[in-house]
Amino acid sequence: MCQLLGMNAKTPTDLTFSFTGFAQRAGKTGDHVDGWGIAFFEEHGVRHFVDHDSAIRSPIAEVIRNYPIKSTNVIAHIRKATQGVVSLPNCHPFVRELWGNYWVFAHNGDLKDYKPRLHGHFHPVGTTDSEHAFCWIMQELCKSHVGVPSIREMTLTLRELAARISPYGTFNFLLSNGDALWAHATTSLFYLERQWPFSRATLSDEDLSIDFSERNGRDDQTAIVVTAPLTQDEHWTPFASGELKVFVDGVHQNL
Amino acid sequence: MCQLLGMNAKTPTDLTFSFTGFAQRAGKTGDHVDGWGIAFFEEHGVRHFVDHDSAIRSPIAEVIRNYPIKSTNVIAHIRKATQGVVSLPNCHPFVRELWGNYWVFAHNGDLKDYKPRLHGHFHPVGTTDSEHAFCWIMQELCKSHVGVPSIREMTLTLRELAARISPYGTFNFLLSNGDALWAHATTSLFYLERQWPFSRATLSDEDLSIDFSERNGRDDQTAIVVTAPLTQDEHWTPFASGELKVFVDGVHQNL
Repeated sequence: MCQLLGMNAKTPTDLTFSFTGFAQRAGKTGDHVDGWGIAFFEEHGVRHFVDHDSAIRSPIAEVIRNYPIKSTNVIAHIRKATQGVVSLPNCHPFVRELWGNYWVFAHNGDLKDYKPRLHGHFHPVGTTDSEHAFCWIMQELCKSHVGVPSIREMTLTLRELAARISPYGTFNFLLSNGDALWAHATTSLFYLERQWPFSRATLSDEDLSIDFSERNGRDDQTAIVVTAPLTQDEHWTPFASGELKVFVDGVHQNL
Repeated sequence: MCQLLGMNAKTPTDLTFSFTGFAQRAGKTGDHVDGWGIAFFEEHGVRHFVDHDSAIRSPIAEVIRNYPIKSTNVIAHIRKATQGVVSLPNCHPFVRELWGNYWVFAHNGDLKDYKPRLHGHFHPVGTTDSEHAFCWIMQELCKSHVGVPSIREMTLTLRELAARISPYGTFNFLLSNGDALWAHATTSLFYLERQWPFSRATLSDEDLSIDFSERNGRDDQTAIVVTAPLTQDEHWTPFASGELKVFVDGVHQNL
């Protein structure tokens, strides 16, 4: 199994605090040592980092922990290989372009005997069930809409597609095109929203705390989605099984 | 205008020496300060780094200069904006997936009034003429072949496509899918092959030399392609205008 971390923010926000805690699970407080990856949207551009080394040893992960890359949508993943060897093409998140948008996807879980035919223009480079599922989602989105749909329409389509894959196993995933963050849970996913007045937060995986009120203003709003709560002193809301949620401008949308 | 750097190697090889010299042109020995990017293939996986900061200031470029990422195919680019604003989606190299391969592309030059219709599945995310040309090439490749063609067939198709774009302006480009490196010149591109017995090389842009014989064995072979020669004491061969060359296992192929 793997672990997921996603961020959706109203204003460009850095994820160094959360990523520092999350990366501890790649060997220190967890055994997710078979690669890691993170993708940051800046408007519709993407910075995409993947490594088959673990996120606590990788020199590139060290830069991410220390260099505040500001972004409105981030998806990160640490991998414990279940299907597919430990190799660069098997590291999440995966990126594809559709309708002139980059789409970033990461999956936590295991899909059994899941090999739908890929008759469109999206094909996996690696050998994971996750990338196969992502390519199928991209193919079906491409058939369902002629261009980038509204966030509401996209959410409805994704709910249908997630429900068609879910019977094959555990399908916790994060998806973003830079405009919104979609998150689907089968087993374990939690979210929280940080907004004014901000308070202090302490990581669960590392002896580190931060006072968000010193760094954020009234306009800042951030939502964090993660496999298991990252902090001890904040209220994390669990997803129900089968639930797909969407976050825009740092806030959970009732769509 | 921009500058290009490509590497094709028989065995996984690091590019820290060449990239150190190349990055000096992003502000120190050149004025290519409007972003940079580099993509490393590891088998068919890609590590892709882009930044709208300059390659001599960027903390991520510093990691690339110091952390030896070993790769068989690398494409790097430093940008001086001619078309398209300075932003992340406009940073080369660009990446798309076709036939289950990632394709990495970087362009140096300027295409005038070049806007062919994109009726396929590849669309630019940014606003550069370069990404538009890349999407058109991907579209035409997809129409010309049903799957990844042989390197010989791919080279013939690319020659036809490059000849159709070249009348619009300057079209120096590098393209790779991890199996080979294709390079096309309109104005300025040079290459060299490093093989046994290796010798010493001294950068033109920085006071740094390296003795390749201490780091390489009989089996190592590397080809470097670049906009302007990187070293003072090696023999760089210029491309003729309109020439498209292909490199496999560190050697220029007569195809």
